[in-house]
Amino acid sequence: MAKALKTILKKKGNFKVNGSLWIECNAKCFFGPGPVELLKNIDETGSINKAAMKMKMSYKKALELIRNLNEQAASPVVITQSGGDKGGGSVITDEARELIAYHIRLRNRFKKFLETETKNLSKAKINT
Amino acid sequence: MAKALKTILKKKGNFKVNGSLWIECNAKCFFGPGPVELLKNIDETGSINKAAMKMKMSYKKALELIRNLNEQAASPVVITQSGGDKGGGSVITDEARELIAYHIRLRNRFKKFLETETKNLSKAKINT
Repeated sequence: MAKALKTILKKKGNFKVNGSLWIECNAKCFFGPGPVELLKNIDETGSINKAAMKMKMSYKKALELIRNLNEQAASPVVITQSGGDKGGGSVITDEARELIAYHIRLRNRFKKFLETETKNLSKAKINT
Repeated sequence: MAKALKTILKKKGNFKVNGSLWIECNAKCFFGPGPVELLKNIDETGSINKAAMKMKMSYKKALELIRNLNEQAASPVVITQSGGDKGGGSVITDEARELIAYHIRLRNRFKKFLETETKNLSKAKINT
């Protein structure tokens, strides 16, 4: 059992344990909220350029993120088709959808961790 | 039970779930690794100025952090004595020590969370 916190915080304060989370590959940032949003936007718009614009990310940065993701994944997460009736376009793969779904589950577990810690912290408030 | 991850990551990659954690009070950052280090340094040096210098923090920033901590805590975490034989100096209180101890426990729980998630992530590696 966690050692109890002494009552050292003001009662009126709205205390919260907060944080951020990401996935590293070889000590380099690999996956987090940014890449997830990019993948979702590519899925929605069918275009890396439109997806990047939607989140005010440069096209160069978007390509870099996708190259990084494609390098770490066992098979590509984004496939770009050139030419054709629609003049090409990009689609996300099942691997990308799995990464997005995993990220949602991971964020939910982290959210639960933060909620538990915030509850724990509220015990440190003075009662007078 | 958490839904299993499909095998979508390269085997050779060194994947790790990493993150950062802090405590907010009224949506403003209140406590984290920086303030903890500052409190420890004040305890060691007996001086806010020396403590700030040790961690390459400006004296102004250090005073601001301490003012913020003192405001949120039920009683002050740092007490500054002026004058006397030693020409004043600053000491940390029992409340500060309790905050430091709590922070260590919190970091340990977070470390455990990250380790569990990193282990979980390794299951997503391909075996071929």
